[in-house]
Amino acid sequence: MKIVIIGGVAGGATAAARLRRLNEEAQIVVLERGGFVSYANCGLPYYLGGVISDRRKLTLQTPESFRRRFNVDVRVHSEAVEILRTQKQVRVRDVKTGREYLEKYDKLVYSPGARAIVPPFVEGKERIFTLRTVEDTYRLDDFLNKGARSVIVAGGGFIGLETAENLARRGLSVTLVELADQVMAPLDYDMACILRDHLAEKGIRLLLSHKLTSLREQGEKVFAQFESGERAEADMALLALGVQPETGLAAAAKLDLGAKGGVIVDEHMRTSDPDIYAVGDAVIVRNSVTGSTTLVPLAGPANKQGRIAADNICGIPSVYRGAQGSSVLKLFDLTAASTGLNERTAAAAGLDAASVILFSPDHATYYPGAKNMTLKVLYEKTDGRILGAQAVGFAGVEKRIDVLATAIRARMTARNLTELDLCYAPPFSSAKDPVNMAGYVIENVRTGIVKQHTWKEIPALVQSADALLLDVQTPEEFAEAHIQGAVNIPVDELRSRLGELDKSKTVYVNCYSGLRSYIACCILAAHGFRCSNLAGGIRFYVTVCGGGYDAASRYLCGQKI
Amino acid sequence: MKIVIIGGVAGGATAAARLRRLNEEAQIVVLERGGFVSYANCGLPYYLGGVISDRRKLTLQTPESFRRRFNVDVRVHSEAVEILRTQKQVRVRDVKTGREYLEKYDKLVYSPGARAIVPPFVEGKERIFTLRTVEDTYRLDDFLNKGARSVIVAGGGFIGLETAENLARRGLSVTLVELADQVMAPLDYDMACILRDHLAEKGIRLLLSHKLTSLREQGEKVFAQFESGERAEADMALLALGVQPETGLAAAAKLDLGAKGGVIVDEHMRTSDPDIYAVGDAVIVRNSVTGSTTLVPLAGPANKQGRIAADNICGIPSVYRGAQGSSVLKLFDLTAASTGLNERTAAAAGLDAASVILFSPDHATYYPGAKNMTLKVLYEKTDGRILGAQAVGFAGVEKRIDVLATAIRARMTARNLTELDLCYAPPFSSAKDPVNMAGYVIENVRTGIVKQHTWKEIPALVQSADALLLDVQTPEEFAEAHIQGAVNIPVDELRSRLGELDKSKTVYVNCYSGLRSYIACCILAAHGFRCSNLAGGIRFYVTVCGGGYDAASRYLCGQKI
Repeated sequence: MKIVIIGGVAGGATAAARLRRLNEEAQIVVLERGGFVSYANCGLPYYLGGVISDRRKLTLQTPESFRRRFNVDVRVHSEAVEILRTQKQVRVRDVKTGREYLEKYDKLVYSPGARAIVPPFVEGKERIFTLRTVEDTYRLDDFLNKGARSVIVAGGGFIGLETAENLARRGLSVTLVELADQVMAPLDYDMACILRDHLAEKGIRLLLSHKLTSLREQGEKVFAQFESGERAEADMALLALGVQPETGLAAAAKLDLGAKGGVIVDEHMRTSDPDIYAVGDAVIVRNSVTGSTTLVPLAGPANKQGRIAADNICGIPSVYRGAQGSSVLKLFDLTAASTGLNERTAAAAGLDAASVILFSPDHATYYPGAKNMTLKVLYEKTDGRILGAQAVGFAGVEKRIDVLATAIRARMTARNLTELDLCYAPPFSSAKDPVNMAGYVIENVRTGIVKQHTWKEIPALVQSADALLLDVQTPEEFAEAHIQGAVNIPVDELRSRLGELDKSKTVYVNCYSGLRSYIACCILAAHGFRCSNLAGGIRFYVTVCGGGYDAASRYLCGQKI
Repeated sequence: MKIVIIGGVAGGATAAARLRRLNEEAQIVVLERGGFVSYANCGLPYYLGGVISDRRKLTLQTPESFRRRFNVDVRVHSEAVEILRTQKQVRVRDVKTGREYLEKYDKLVYSPGARAIVPPFVEGKERIFTLRTVEDTYRLDDFLNKGARSVIVAGGGFIGLETAENLARRGLSVTLVELADQVMAPLDYDMACILRDHLAEKGIRLLLSHKLTSLREQGEKVFAQFESGERAEADMALLALGVQPETGLAAAAKLDLGAKGGVIVDEHMRTSDPDIYAVGDAVIVRNSVTGSTTLVPLAGPANKQGRIAADNICGIPSVYRGAQGSSVLKLFDLTAASTGLNERTAAAAGLDAASVILFSPDHATYYPGAKNMTLKVLYEKTDGRILGAQAVGFAGVEKRIDVLATAIRARMTARNLTELDLCYAPPFSSAKDPVNMAGYVIENVRTGIVKQHTWKEIPALVQSADALLLDVQTPEEFAEAHIQGAVNIPVDELRSRLGELDKSKTVYVNCYSGLRSYIACCILAAHGFRCSNLAGGIRFYVTVCGGGYDAASRYLCGQKI
């Protein structure tokens, strides 16, 4: 059997290694357009920032080492330029010589990846970069070494944010431009606000809701122009506007393609041609939460798919059960992670979702170094099934998202979260882990023990004559931040001061994080008040709406506002 | 409704708070023998070591603050001395005055905890301590302040190890005594060897397999005597020999008790008396993996149970689904965590279990700071269901165990582990997380792609004429450590040197960690060799059997042995 693999990075390299382990006799050819295989593509931004300082670390596997270990015919600088399905051949171009030749296959693994999107208005290649390959990285690094001092990073996704951080670490003045009103599309707007503020703290100039209409080099500068008429300039620019499947070959070969040009595969990673498998950023996969199809250009799925394709080629009927988009980002001191659906994707899937917001310490507060994380968990209202989760904080963040990712995969409900038996010792967690707590909060809401409202409703509530805003923080906390018009009764005084509240109104309660106000709601409800708890507390409202980013910030009062 | 709660720490305090939130009208009385409620009992060792330096941090909740927040009648120094079930009363003794009185209840929550085991041969109370309460901690601290310089810690479980670390941190010379041949009973012997070596590195004198027959104070010293005739002495001793349910009241009241005096409860935490609930260290719970009953004296289950008892008292039929013993220990620089069954408990449950050993980096090796963890995962041979997991390492350890705990709760199989979509970015994990990798390795073993043998079999294999030991490390690695009699052929040369191997023998292959030797096995099997892979590699064999701890260490050769 002869297997040709187009693309030697994540999915392709994994497929090659697994194929060899399963079949010592097969002839395996890897065609890689670039000069490197199985390299550390997720590490490229960190090389630019000097976090990874040794070039060899990026390319731990060389074509030679891969060949030696796996007896695979690795051909770098070898671009597949045509798939000839009827004769089962690939036309290969030697990138350095231009020579073309045909390579026969019995099975083909197509792992072309995705290319960085470059809008038509971009002009220039000397000072405007993308970051996908080792070659891109070296080129960018060489340019930086010539003394660039400022950069426009276009796009606030993983690559944009990681590169912004690393270029800032390298001393550049960074302007980050994003079309949407938030960075990190996998997060909801409110959770992304934490990243927004952190970027500002770290000196990144962040231009949200800015639509680029022009980006061009001129002389020693790059000039950006926005739809609003605003302009920006810098010594260089990085395009990180997302990726699109690089599936020109598949299209030309008339393999079935779907949305955005992704290759359609079955659960065995087989394309519409039974002798061609496709894996990685270029394929359309099932979202394991909704069952709908999607593109998930992440390394984890690519590696899993490469292995599954190899299994099937060797007669093991492995199945890819879909992705749920679990991902994590380090952004300066912060970690942001998410899995499953967010508000937008849940709504798009027609699910009746709601969410809870927690502000939980990563470990017991009496043990040194505890820091709170913001944890948002989405659930299906009717059955309490967990649909997605997002967390932003400093430590233990992606741990909770990994646990929730596993729970979501198992189709667990909020009640199941309360039952999870997780590791506890003071340096690592609390006796009730934040994941347990999320389950408890959801169950309290679902069973009607407490009602909750969100930051979105505050402006209307401030103006409503039927709403009574009650802040149960201490007077000191209240002085620091509270909502306009709120009455301050500390929770511990509430039982004795209920008479001060107008029972004809609905009481909208908040504290700092949402815990004391929950207790207050229990007290109020027992005394016949209609009441509701502000999810995430004043802290989350300030994070989302404060700092002048939002019109709602005018409803905030206090010394810290 | 009037609810009396016996015991104001984890389970009792949680029950009180939840009861109040669910029922604002109920009269709630908490009886606590000691002077503190809802204190940080898992933090006590860290106070001794100065990691937690502020006494107030241990007792964040005071009786007063608890009373104010929850309108609960908290009575400290109030010991319940009798439960009068027929008249539904508790006899209470004021510990300070000796005055006794009767307290009526409609529902009783019994949360007495467990007491430290003190064997009959222990003589002395001035220099021999236990560590359960805040008072114990202060007493121990006061004694330490008088200048003790050495300590015998009896017992190598959580409390013993955490206290040993903290007393060493305080400058004491620590001798840790353990009856078993390993510390940390939740771990298998081989995994506990990593802790053993770490303790030695940190200067703890560890006496394993030492049966105490006498421990007594005399003058300024404590003297220990062992069954072997050996002796030890120190300025003081700490007993951490485990705990037993403190259920004398329940026994006297003729509540149904089970093994080791634990209180028998139903899934609603109700005892044999429908008006009495019991929670925490004193109750017998279901092991959620095997379905058998057990005692799990851990804070996580206690807190969950307290809440469930409160729910049921208030008409919410919450159910406790059992514990799986998830736990984590910080031991100097190491983290050790486990969940579910280990080899011993799996065998006791009659399960046909096997395990795999991985040595996986906590995050991408090209990103700075990656450190390997040893991960052992147990599975049921016939269906591949995950039964338990243990991990020891430096970072990301309890994250993987929490994910596996969730997977075990969902009754996932090894294949399900391979399918988990977990968060990946270079600072946090690898594209294939160690949990995914564990699933792959198990599937390879289960489907017969590779056979494996363990460190236990090495001595017999060295002596067997039918076994060929093949070490596929590099010559440099081989020189550092290899098994006596092993042939060295680096994996990358194996294909061209197969002729050197005798096909009539079974080839037992090892490399450093088990990965290259797996590839070697694939090559060998394809060429018709019978072969097997050493689980965990030479590294794990050295860890378990090296250092002279085990007779098998004589089969180890090399510069590092």
